[in-house]
Amino acid sequence: MTIINQVNNPSDVKKLSLSELEDLANDIRELLVNKVSKVGGHFGPNLGVVEMTIALHKVFDSPTDKIVWDVSHQSYPHKILTGRKQGFADGHFHDITPYTDQEESEHDFFTIGHTSTSIALAEGLAKARDLKGEAGNIIAVIGDGSMSGGLAFEGLNNAAELNSNLIVILNDNEMSIAKNYGGLYPHLAELRATNGQATNNLFKAFGFDYHYLENGHSIADLIGLFEEVKDANHPVFLHIHTEKGHGVDWALKDKQTNHWRSPFDIKTGEPLRPSLAKPTFESTIVDFLEEEIEAGKPVLAMNAAIPGAFGLGRIEAKYPEHYWDSGIAEQHNISMATGFATAGAKPYVFHSATFLQRAYDQISHDLAINKVPAVLIVRGASITNSDRTHQGTFEHAMLATIPNLIYLAPAHVAELKEMLRFASQQTENPVVISIPAQQDMEKQYVKKEFATPNYDIVQKGSRVAILGLGGFLQLGKEVAAALEKDGITPTVINPRFIASLDEKTLESLKDNHELVVTLEDGSVDGGFGQRIAGFFGPTEVKVLVKGSLREFTEVVPQAELYDRYRLNKEQIVTDILDILK
Amino acid sequence: MTIINQVNNPSDVKKLSLSELEDLANDIRELLVNKVSKVGGHFGPNLGVVEMTIALHKVFDSPTDKIVWDVSHQSYPHKILTGRKQGFADGHFHDITPYTDQEESEHDFFTIGHTSTSIALAEGLAKARDLKGEAGNIIAVIGDGSMSGGLAFEGLNNAAELNSNLIVILNDNEMSIAKNYGGLYPHLAELRATNGQATNNLFKAFGFDYHYLENGHSIADLIGLFEEVKDANHPVFLHIHTEKGHGVDWALKDKQTNHWRSPFDIKTGEPLRPSLAKPTFESTIVDFLEEEIEAGKPVLAMNAAIPGAFGLGRIEAKYPEHYWDSGIAEQHNISMATGFATAGAKPYVFHSATFLQRAYDQISHDLAINKVPAVLIVRGASITNSDRTHQGTFEHAMLATIPNLIYLAPAHVAELKEMLRFASQQTENPVVISIPAQQDMEKQYVKKEFATPNYDIVQKGSRVAILGLGGFLQLGKEVAAALEKDGITPTVINPRFIASLDEKTLESLKDNHELVVTLEDGSVDGGFGQRIAGFFGPTEVKVLVKGSLREFTEVVPQAELYDRYRLNKEQIVTDILDILK
Repeated sequence: MTIINQVNNPSDVKKLSLSELEDLANDIRELLVNKVSKVGGHFGPNLGVVEMTIALHKVFDSPTDKIVWDVSHQSYPHKILTGRKQGFADGHFHDITPYTDQEESEHDFFTIGHTSTSIALAEGLAKARDLKGEAGNIIAVIGDGSMSGGLAFEGLNNAAELNSNLIVILNDNEMSIAKNYGGLYPHLAELRATNGQATNNLFKAFGFDYHYLENGHSIADLIGLFEEVKDANHPVFLHIHTEKGHGVDWALKDKQTNHWRSPFDIKTGEPLRPSLAKPTFESTIVDFLEEEIEAGKPVLAMNAAIPGAFGLGRIEAKYPEHYWDSGIAEQHNISMATGFATAGAKPYVFHSATFLQRAYDQISHDLAINKVPAVLIVRGASITNSDRTHQGTFEHAMLATIPNLIYLAPAHVAELKEMLRFASQQTENPVVISIPAQQDMEKQYVKKEFATPNYDIVQKGSRVAILGLGGFLQLGKEVAAALEKDGITPTVINPRFIASLDEKTLESLKDNHELVVTLEDGSVDGGFGQRIAGFFGPTEVKVLVKGSLREFTEVVPQAELYDRYRLNKEQIVTDILDILK
Repeated sequence: MTIINQVNNPSDVKKLSLSELEDLANDIRELLVNKVSKVGGHFGPNLGVVEMTIALHKVFDSPTDKIVWDVSHQSYPHKILTGRKQGFADGHFHDITPYTDQEESEHDFFTIGHTSTSIALAEGLAKARDLKGEAGNIIAVIGDGSMSGGLAFEGLNNAAELNSNLIVILNDNEMSIAKNYGGLYPHLAELRATNGQATNNLFKAFGFDYHYLENGHSIADLIGLFEEVKDANHPVFLHIHTEKGHGVDWALKDKQTNHWRSPFDIKTGEPLRPSLAKPTFESTIVDFLEEEIEAGKPVLAMNAAIPGAFGLGRIEAKYPEHYWDSGIAEQHNISMATGFATAGAKPYVFHSATFLQRAYDQISHDLAINKVPAVLIVRGASITNSDRTHQGTFEHAMLATIPNLIYLAPAHVAELKEMLRFASQQTENPVVISIPAQQDMEKQYVKKEFATPNYDIVQKGSRVAILGLGGFLQLGKEVAAALEKDGITPTVINPRFIASLDEKTLESLKDNHELVVTLEDGSVDGGFGQRIAGFFGPTEVKVLVKGSLREFTEVVPQAELYDRYRLNKEQIVTDILDILK
């Protein structure tokens, strides 16, 4: 680690000789391994673009020339070369965010975290440059996995209309987070095998000036290519072959595991902490699916390129006919599931909350309007210390705007099992199950009807009724227990339905309750509690709605958020007593 | 009109000779012209697929073989041949829906109304067929305009994984609703010019078995092609050249106008009713844009293939550099606008509410997280007699889940102008303006501050406060006037902000108001009123939330919906007095 000491910004990169640049690559890799081994983070994607990033900053003049990193989970080398190497020094790892961030550096232009947006974003920058009469290259770097998202193709289609400088770099490392699926990938393989000379070049079909580079880790080759196309007056497509995890032998052996790592032994790559036992909710679902498949039912486990998040690898390996990965194509996954269910088969569709938002239209227009009995499993709706691009607190409010969904929140695994059983037998409506972040651990009776909204009254009391939705039922019970000290025995309810009201139960509360308290693990705006407030609006019953605010939060500790939203047990009790005064 | 009398279902088509089939095409065209001339409807798209539809039902065996019509605005000939020709007879035009509808016929599989979903839906049907061990061809028919949507490409990408029968028909009539934009279209032109022999065949690149047919109006050629690929054991792509409006001379002369028609003179095609004056809200915006362009500002009018809905043709013709059509690619439009605004230029992005829902993710992930000062103009959020796939009543609830948007509802044109002026000067946040369906016609003072939520108090009163959002301000005033008879002078408020509360004004209502009434022209679930109910939940102030229910409605007369939702002035007054008792 010597060269890196001389490099603080892109202009320093330009001063280095080729052999110094190669040393720089080694130094960067050392920083990456050190940081990720200690605090975790994206690993393989960053290792794969070290040389490309060096060559980009050698040839182009950031920030006049603008680089847009798709997803930006490969932007660590870029951060290191643009004034942020301090964020890779022990004790300073959390000084920088895990994705690009325009507030962190003038060399970043967007906060990103989902795939396939880079070409469209770059086209916006390019069109503004042209309209304002400015100069500079606009460069989008996108992975082959991200190319499976339709938005990327919309970007390819729009490029020709620009009729000016735009450089799209396909960082082809032959995989998505997991294996790639789709007809695009044999095509990319053919292009690689023919050094870019295959017939039927998809990118030329869109009108791009296409170039292929076989060795995406040769800094000399990369510099040559970039110099060739710099300042081109038309859209250029650079297909560059790289290796995910390049430069770290053991990372190459299991590329999927090494896409994102928790802390590990720096020499061997072995995890420092034993991996956790499988999440109970997720493994319960996969067990259920296995039973259905073994019983000969036409079920399909569908997902959009994140099998690992749900443990679907088991289904893929054991029952490949019953497994479907749409690529990073949430829209397609939902529409295809609609078709599959229409034909009398049963899709189980797995999504994370923030990625699913890309399929809002398909959930409404295809799934809900057509009322097909698909099963949609969503995880991530929870107040956590996530970055803002992966913040699941809007899931409930988002999906609860859509009619015809039976939208369920289990409070524990036993209830999840009953919901799955119900969903498997549904013939009329889509069932959406929102997996909670925490569960009520007490054994308890499980109310089994889900066809129409009906709440589970966990405890009968008076004056105050607490509705603890999904993962917040446990919190509701704790608040109830605490209120006993003040002589109040509240009613405690597991509402189970996120978007639809059990009006009969709510009606019954009017008799001997002054206050209804709703607790939800997400944004209150447009959420569960405001529906309850609307219901009781014309009555004497008061309502206290508790949850998170409609705001983006960037890696804020959960405890701080709970405090901010007054979601701690003591705060809730205080707020309740204040209203009862 | 003789042959059509013998045809009641697809089996009748199979009995006809080629020349009889040609007569049948004429008869179908006559039915189409008759119906659309009298009640309006999609015109050019249906005229263009008459022969294709006949040949499909001649060769394939619906409903065992399944045809999925993209958007389904070209499904009239299919409806005529599948037992629904009665819906084209005088007096029965409204017996059938304008799109495919599985409740109407076993030959329809989905209710559709937006583009680009057909390939994914068909793949779901195909996968279910394979998993269940069933037989039959699965056919998706998609227009060249619809191919600009990313979801269509996700479908192309997934086809190869099926490894079984799937027939995608590209109905290439060389246009979208308006002109096509994007690199795809020169490619299609090249394929047409070379009889499908051009290099860099995009569809072959995805692994399809590609066939080209130049004359998509030759029934003999169509039958030949369909027979050739029937029962193929792999994904097939049929690129068929057709003509939008085929068979009606005057329809060919202005294909954009004849995409969808209001009633017209059956001989000349001239509209029966003079076209309405330009909608005031829309023309106000285009006027404003012209002023900005003439003042030399770097503004861009962006839309996704529906320039006609906003009168953007004026900008396109006069200032082509300031106009962008992303294709039917709402996602791209929003992401590109994010890039454009990031570079210090000002995009004005135009969308209809129901099409915009496809870009929910981009509005959140790109526009809102990055807080770029783009201007988004949305129309269609209103309770109308629309079909359910174009029902805008969920817009407010949907967008109001997203942080960082300044989400405005003008009540009249003067207010819209002030909002545009404010938005044009914004440097920090996206501004979304929801164009109302009706406007308050009284001249009145316009409150100009929009940076933070602040309501406009139109009338000061007591006991009852009425908040009439956007197009419902007028209704609020009418209710207020009616309440005078009962000795109540309510406060009337124009809240102007859809998603964020003016807490100071709301707080001030507590003093001398018992009841706050919210009126919104859309779904109450997750909407404006429930936010108000949540605010007043812990207090003595009661809240009555008025708007539509979260339900899909299919061409239900507006008056019936108002009655159902108790939105008539008299009903609202009754409900208010009931609560005050």
